Parts: sequence; structure tokens; C-alpha cells
Amino acid sequence: MEKPIRVIQYGVGWIGAAIVRLMLEKPGLQVVGAVDADPEKVGKDLGRVAGANRDLGVPIGRDLASCAPSGADVVVHSTTSSLKQVSSELMECARLGAHVVSTCEELSYPFRKQPELSAQLDQFAREHKVALLGVGVNPGFAMDKLALTLASACHRVDRVKVHRVVDASRRRLPLQKKVGAGMTVEEFNAKVATGVIKHHGLPESLAMIADALSAPVERIEETIEPVVATQSARFESMEIPAGRVLGVHQVARGLRDGEESICLELHMFMGAPEPTDSIKISGVPDLSMQIPGGIHGDLATAAVAVNCIPAALEAKPGLRTAKDIPMCFFPGRGRS
Amino acid sequence: MEKPIRVIQYGVGWIGAAIVRLMLEKPGLQVVGAVDADPEKVGKDLGRVAGANRDLGVPIGRDLASCAPSGADVVVHSTTSSLKQVSSELMECARLGAHVVSTCEELSYPFRKQPELSAQLDQFAREHKVALLGVGVNPGFAMDKLALTLASACHRVDRVKVHRVVDASRRRLPLQKKVGAGMTVEEFNAKVATGVIKHHGLPESLAMIADALSAPVERIEETIEPVVATQSARFESMEIPAGRVLGVHQVARGLRDGEESICLELHMFMGAPEPTDSIKISGVPDLSMQIPGGIHGDLATAAVAVNCIPAALEAKPGLRTAKDIPMCFFPGRGRS
Repeated sequence: MEKPIRVIQYGVGWIGAAIVRLMLEKPGLQVVGAVDADPEKVGKDLGRVAGANRDLGVPIGRDLASCAPSGADVVVHSTTSSLKQVSSELMECARLGAHVVSTCEELSYPFRKQPELSAQLDQFAREHKVALLGVGVNPGFAMDKLALTLASACHRVDRVKVHRVVDASRRRLPLQKKVGAGMTVEEFNAKVATGVIKHHGLPESLAMIADALSAPVERIEETIEPVVATQSARFESMEIPAGRVLGVHQVARGLRDGEESICLELHMFMGAPEPTDSIKISGVPDLSMQIPGGIHGDLATAAVAVNCIPAALEAKPGLRTAKDIPMCFFPGRGRS
Repeated sequence: MEKPIRVIQYGVGWIGAAIVRLMLEKPGLQVVGAVDADPEKVGKDLGRVAGANRDLGVPIGRDLASCAPSGADVVVHSTTSSLKQVSSELMECARLGAHVVSTCEELSYPFRKQPELSAQLDQFAREHKVALLGVGVNPGFAMDKLALTLASACHRVDRVKVHRVVDASRRRLPLQKKVGAGMTVEEFNAKVATGVIKHHGLPESLAMIADALSAPVERIEETIEPVVATQSARFESMEIPAGRVLGVHQVARGLRDGEESICLELHMFMGAPEPTDSIKISGVPDLSMQIPGGIHGDLATAAVAVNCIPAALEAKPGLRTAKDIPMCFFPGRGRS
């Protein structure tokens, strides 16, 4: 007899809401609680806030303790990109004895950039016998896990090159703003300097690949540049005059002695032609893969989070990443 | 401190030999024994038989007991395609307390076709606290695991279509013969009827996908047809006159009420144009993937087997398949 997996949604922003709507389609998942820091959302029914157009009988709570008196098997966590900011939230979940699936970008592979915090979270999760699993489509899938999966068919891997091209005009407005669409180059550069414009996750993806392959990467270099409109262009959400910014071109390179062994390149701009995810492994044998049209970031992040719930339940306690788990579609059964 | 993983190679045929040569490149693996039923090989040094052109100090034994008195962490098993034929060998490995990575095609996903034998092997492996892991490039990767991995980015999966095109002229001669290259159509059909010509694994791949997706597949249909030369063609290994067979076109379909939800199609023939692996998922969102040139079957089977060794060590005891494990390149470190 299969019984439903009891889930709490932590964070009901855009991604969190998409996750909730998807979870409602899976009979084996039972959403038993929800948390959000926004006073506007607290007390309201999760179904309404998440755009499910019906009451779920699950009021959004201010904190975990108040929202799920009888606990849960898993917390799906989706608040912000910064691991420092969310680490106390993750510990709160672990203390509840629930496994955590989090879309926090910096959690996708934190070991290189934040070794101390990683060790601390790993230790804490082990003590509470739960898995803390960082997931997402990027980082966590398109530019790392997929390349590692492909590499399992190789005898030797010398070099990995991943290129993701996203047409930002087909994505939601907040993402268009996040890549600087419509800004002047000066505005763009200022926002890059203060860290406002930035896809989070390239160094994490690169570190995941480097460690999995034991690739000799001593240094990770990252560059962010604007893609500038050469002629004015009209999109559904905005018009962008010539000379203004369409979006970002971001590259992370893994280097040793100046030589590049891993290169992750992301083009994310309005009207980007031929959106694609492509992976090229140079080795024995060479192996390359293309996903024409690309993986839809907004849809896929929610999908990956929900699809990884069973893997989180099966994972070894501790801090885990996409590298450690089998990734698969989750049809929505409960657990036996 | 990392210590090497101790491995026994069970079966030193073409694939087994390729696996051994690859294992010798991984410092974290120590080949401590080898078994083969062929009296011509027994007593000879594994390094010579496997084509490594040097002695390894590992004589090939007739059976497991005689070849590895002090045991091993893993047995890499590569003898034949038939699960019935190898099940006693697999049990012999489990009895030794070693995890098993096997390239036996029918082990890749045996639960539908051989439920009783599967249950028996699963029980036996659990009792001996080892994992029995069926792996390979096809079945086990190109036409199943890769599709499931891709599906982790989907909200809903309605239909899966996988198409693998292999140019048999770029593969070894035994494989060319296995697909019927050079035969008359009558010879081909006779060999299909007796089960001699057949790629093993399509129903296994299809069952793996169906079960993982909870796809409503009541029946699996399989067809095998010859691809016939319309004009004579010269290849490195043979010349094939017009009217003779170039290879196979094999299709497996997963059906419910006559409706197809999964289709796996394999073209494997001499001179096949544009070898490719392609996967097409219809769902939310649609998602398709191509590997131009295709995954090289001979190279990749050895690669997958060796790369999956760490996953076998980490897997839960019992009968396991590619679906259950993270697939990744194994750089060849030992274990800590």
C-alpha cells in the first residue's frame, strides 16, 4: 500500500508557486503546510496564493514550527539564491527531521565557494539524518548534471564545453529585468558591479563538473557582458532601442596553468536566435549533445524540484547535489 | 586516505577485455582476479588475454572461488545476454560478498519479462548485502536512462520516442555479423526466427521507461526487419551486393488499447547515414535531444560498466538498474 509523501512548501514566490501547482497534480504528494516571510501572504490559503484557483485548506504560516505541527517527509524550499541567507532556513527544516529539496542556486554545489558553511550544513543534516539536496535546471541540470550523465559513456574526458542559449523574450518579465533587458550599457555595468545582474550558478556548475571528473581546475574565472541591440527590436513586454541591452553573455572558465578544461557559456537575451542547450565533451570518444529549443528554465526548475522529491527521500543524509542522485521523472505515486 | 577498489573481471571476451583495459587506466581500481570459462584462456595472464600487452600477475581462473581467495569489492561481469544463463554466475558473485556490475543485456531491466527470476536474484542479493547492477550503453543508457534523465525537466510526459541509428560498418565484425550484414533475406529471416539475429534489450529499455513514468503500457510489441541493399556497397570488412542484407531495423512499441505511448526504434546497418541518438519527449514541455554521430556502442559499453563501479558500491543491496543510480564519469580515484 502506497502512502502519500507529506510535503511542506517553504517560500511561495514565483518558483515556489509553480512547484505547488505541479505538486497538486501528483496524487502521491500531499501538501501539508506552507511558509512564507511575506506578511501579505501569511494566513492566506496556499492554493489561492500559488495560483491554483482553489482553497487547499493549507494556510501559509510565518515559520515552519507554526505551519506543520505534525511534521512532514520533505520540505521543498524556494526562497533566495544566497546560501548564507538561507542556511538558517535549511537548518530549521533539518531540525524538523524533514529532507529538503531546495532551489537555492548556491546550494547546487557549494563545496568550493563556501567550504565551511557546506561542511557545517553537511554535518547538521547528518546529525538530523536528513538529506539537504540542492536542485534546479540551471544550476543543477542543463549545464552540469546532463554533461556528467553524458560523460558516463566516455573512457576519458579531456575538456567539457557547455553552451546554453535562452531567448529571454519567451520568459517572464522578472527574468527579463534580471538580465538587464532595456537598460543602457552604463546601467547594466553598474548593476553587474553591484552583483544585481548575474545568473547565479555558473561557478557552482563548473565546480560540480570539475570535482566529478577530477579535472585539474585551479581557478574559475567568470565574465559578464551585455548583449547590445544593433537595431531597435519590439518584444511583447518591451521595445528595446538600438544601443540598449538585450541581455547577458556570461562565461565561466575552469583553468589550470592558463589552460581551459571546462567552459560554461550562457547567452540569455531578448530575441536570442535558436535557443539551444549544447554539450560538447572532448575525450575518448568525443561526444556532443544538443537540445534544440533549449530546456525551458521556468517550467523546468519546478519540474526538477518536484521530480527530485523521491531521490531526496532515498539519498544518504548530508549535503547532496544533483551529481549524487539519479534524476528521473516522478509520475506522482506515493511511497510503499 | 583513499584505498583502491578491488575488482574481479568475470568474462574476458571482447567486451570484458575492453573493460579490463579501461580499468587499468584508473589508479583507484585494482584488478585482483579474472574468470573465464574458455579453457584456452584459463591459466593465462589477464593482461595478455585482454590485449593490454603486459603481464598483470593475474592468471585467469576457471571459477570465482579459485581466482580470488581474498575476495573483492566488485565483480564486473560480462559473459552473455541471457539472464537465465548467467543467474547462477551472478549468485556466485553475490555469495562472495561482492557487488556486481554486469553487462548482461537482460539484467538491464528484467522485472517485466522475468519477474520470478528477478525476485529471486533481488532476494539473494539483499541477503548477501550486495547490489546486482545491470548496465550498458544499450540497454542501460542510450535508449532508456538518458530519456528518463531528460524527463526530469518535464511537468508531464505523454509519449517517448527514441531513435538510435548505428552505422554497423564502423563497428567490429562480430557485431556486423550479429545484425545479418551480407546475408540473403531468407537467411536473415531464418536467423530472426531462431533468435540468432536480435539486438537484446529493447523490451528491457521500454519496460524501464514505462515503469519509471508509470506509463500505461499493457503490451510490448517488437518487430525485426532486414534493411536491404538497393545497390551493391563496399565496406572495409565486406562487400554487400544489391538485394542482400545491410543490417536490422528493430522496433519496440509500448501499447495500451492499441495506442502507442513509448516507441524505441533501432537502425543498425552497414553504411547507415547520419548515425544519431535522438530522444523526443512529448509532454509539458516537449523536449528533444540529439547526439549527432551517436554514442559509440563498443567504446561506451566498457565505459559505462567501469564508470558505474562507484555507483554499485553505493547502491542499496538488491537488484538495481540504471534507473536507480546516478550515472557519471568515474575519474578513477579509490574510495575513502
